[in-house]
Amino acid sequence: MSDVPYKTYLPENDIPTSWYNLRADMKNKPAPLLNPATRQPCTADELGHVFCEELVQQELDNDTKFFPIPKEISDFYKMYRPSPLVRAYFLEKALGTPAHIYYKFEGNNTSGSHKLNSSIAQAYYAKKQGLKGVTTETGAGQWGTALSMACAFFGLDCKVFMVKCSYEQKPFRREVMRTYGADVTPSPSDTTDVGRRILAEHPGTTGSLGCAISEAVEYAVKHEGYRYVLGSVLNQVLLHQSIIGLEAHRAFERLGVKPDVIIGCAGGGSNLGGLIAPFMGEKLRGEKDYRIVAVEPASCPSFTRGVFAYDFCDTGRICPLAKMYTLGADFIPSANHAGGLRFHGMSTILSQLYHDKMMEAVSVEQTAVFEAAEFFARTEGTLPAPESSHAIRAAIDEALRCKREGIEENIFFGLTGTGYFDLVAYQKYNDRTMTDQIPTDDELAVPRAKLP
Amino acid sequence: MSDVPYKTYLPENDIPTSWYNLRADMKNKPAPLLNPATRQPCTADELGHVFCEELVQQELDNDTKFFPIPKEISDFYKMYRPSPLVRAYFLEKALGTPAHIYYKFEGNNTSGSHKLNSSIAQAYYAKKQGLKGVTTETGAGQWGTALSMACAFFGLDCKVFMVKCSYEQKPFRREVMRTYGADVTPSPSDTTDVGRRILAEHPGTTGSLGCAISEAVEYAVKHEGYRYVLGSVLNQVLLHQSIIGLEAHRAFERLGVKPDVIIGCAGGGSNLGGLIAPFMGEKLRGEKDYRIVAVEPASCPSFTRGVFAYDFCDTGRICPLAKMYTLGADFIPSANHAGGLRFHGMSTILSQLYHDKMMEAVSVEQTAVFEAAEFFARTEGTLPAPESSHAIRAAIDEALRCKREGIEENIFFGLTGTGYFDLVAYQKYNDRTMTDQIPTDDELAVPRAKLP
Repeated sequence: MSDVPYKTYLPENDIPTSWYNLRADMKNKPAPLLNPATRQPCTADELGHVFCEELVQQELDNDTKFFPIPKEISDFYKMYRPSPLVRAYFLEKALGTPAHIYYKFEGNNTSGSHKLNSSIAQAYYAKKQGLKGVTTETGAGQWGTALSMACAFFGLDCKVFMVKCSYEQKPFRREVMRTYGADVTPSPSDTTDVGRRILAEHPGTTGSLGCAISEAVEYAVKHEGYRYVLGSVLNQVLLHQSIIGLEAHRAFERLGVKPDVIIGCAGGGSNLGGLIAPFMGEKLRGEKDYRIVAVEPASCPSFTRGVFAYDFCDTGRICPLAKMYTLGADFIPSANHAGGLRFHGMSTILSQLYHDKMMEAVSVEQTAVFEAAEFFARTEGTLPAPESSHAIRAAIDEALRCKREGIEENIFFGLTGTGYFDLVAYQKYNDRTMTDQIPTDDELAVPRAKLP
Repeated sequence: MSDVPYKTYLPENDIPTSWYNLRADMKNKPAPLLNPATRQPCTADELGHVFCEELVQQELDNDTKFFPIPKEISDFYKMYRPSPLVRAYFLEKALGTPAHIYYKFEGNNTSGSHKLNSSIAQAYYAKKQGLKGVTTETGAGQWGTALSMACAFFGLDCKVFMVKCSYEQKPFRREVMRTYGADVTPSPSDTTDVGRRILAEHPGTTGSLGCAISEAVEYAVKHEGYRYVLGSVLNQVLLHQSIIGLEAHRAFERLGVKPDVIIGCAGGGSNLGGLIAPFMGEKLRGEKDYRIVAVEPASCPSFTRGVFAYDFCDTGRICPLAKMYTLGADFIPSANHAGGLRFHGMSTILSQLYHDKMMEAVSVEQTAVFEAAEFFARTEGTLPAPESSHAIRAAIDEALRCKREGIEENIFFGLTGTGYFDLVAYQKYNDRTMTDQIPTDDELAVPRAKLP
């Protein structure tokens, strides 16, 4: 073993004090959001009906490179940040690989994931604007939990629309949010127009992120003093999540190590976009080169089997259109797919970068993901979230490639969170009743045919 | 806010390399374990049938002050240690107290508690002795999870007898252990003589720690290549857990801070004994003075309402007798009592120290504990385990006393773990269906009347 410690924590006074806006270094900027009625780029005024004012500014700003982190947010960050950069010595040994494996672990907070990095920022701006509360959707529950914690901290009302199948399968997720004072409604519900419409069209539906987004947006727009907040996809979210990559970048500098390949799981892109931000910046500026790999579930393969086109972000088609890799706003991944990473589209920033061949993408099957998760739990101790385990799978595959080729690369991946609330999925894996759910070409063609 | 950072992590090379044996500094040594047949002090040979050899040496050694931590264990520690010493700035602010509140957080590992500190040590010595596997009992499930992780790491078979009511109420705890390869049996079971006897005498019993201990010991004694391991009460466990206090002590030295009052929850004493070890050592040696406070549930009040006497550690009466504060080996706390801290007795070390008036003890009621837990979750972010929340309750009460008296004390408590697997209890609290279960004098008198 080398001189690199198992875990590297930045000192508190070295935690980054600004977020990094990757768009500032992109030559090809991400395409703007379009107003669904006019098909013209959304103005700040239009977005301000849905989102908090300062967040709209962050959303639309493609030029400002650094946004200072307000003191209230950086104080909150100090409760659970810096997160450790971990050298996976035990995993390396168990794989017998010459590769050096590193991961940035974002699960050491009660929300169990990186989502808290953005929820506390969004809650802060909502509070600053004098709002009563915020609404959101949650699928696996990580984002809803993170937002509940943030709202409890700032004394904001928090209204969460939770995808119905998750609501039923994860009563404890619901209970954590309740402990933090949030109001949690299974979606689709009869409390919104769009929910009632979806229920009428698809009786017995177990819901989808796209439905829950529509309901949360409608509630925010129709209630005085409320705005909608979102845990992924948006530019502002990737901006907040850049704290992950910035910390990791500084930690690697302290260690004198340069990662060769950087791997992150990708659903809407919140973790991946944050993790890779400063490294991608160097790559865009031509300063350093890295292989950057997005890992997505084979059951929801936006990058690897989607199309790059304008599409709706929600099933109810009331949200702006985004140009992104998409499977079609009507695509709903199999209910058998565990955990998150269920969004039909992808961050416009990451979509543009992928289109420009600045990064790669792979899709992995669910049982292979849980095989990696169990292996990781037993060797590295931490029980990973299913989402994070997509990155683990890809990192292990890269480490085994290094073993075959006899080369010592530095592999770096994002371990976004813990799997404490995913034990129904682990049980299915342990019982060998888990299956892979890969959509056929026909199943993908139908929702894509409805692209606007 | 002062110069003290929110979180203090020791550098990896400053993690203690030896465990500290508090008994070496005790003038009045803890009373020896007695053989239940002969009522004579247990010999190493006798204990060697039940426990691993090196652990027996640690158990019986009242004189060696420091035990070097083997490299295999200290490497494993580096996966999740050092744990942070946290300054609870947000809690102080929310309470409006002049007190400075610190806590040592042991929940940042998948077992969710401090128990891993001893399980990895015990698994290591079992492996070194060439054993096939180990058996144990678990109540709330923290210890069973920690032992499962440790056994997976060293490739040992792990047989866990889980108190039946926990087994049924906490399927996810069971599933985590299964993910780590452990075999989990609800106790009492029909797989052991003592289990069958208890089932015949108490049909429909939901089990107790005392029953599960008896079953685990019987299984170990009757199966070649197995030994029994225990997560609390024993001297060896407090020895391993001294890592908590040693790290905290060094961190306080770095900060130039001296705690005035040190608070830990107490069930069998594993956390409390480890947390206070170096501080109590200073107190015993007359170097420094600290108030040291044990916090126990009003529903299982060994210190505050028990007697100091020799008693059985298990319901089946097959284990050695220990001189301790006890409610009687037949005492079973109310099934409504959430979480751990359900053992009828207490560490002999801590019992002796309490008897010698070196520490205080308070008991707290369950609803007051959950009130503190929720308050803490909302202010400090972390969802605490019910066990840990006993210490939070007492720390808050001390901080409020400081507020009333207008004095700035340094309050230090152990936050032993997280509450991810305790959400049924949180739900009861949220629904206001949780009750306090305080045994009457008569209810305590009956089991105590059967003391040997």
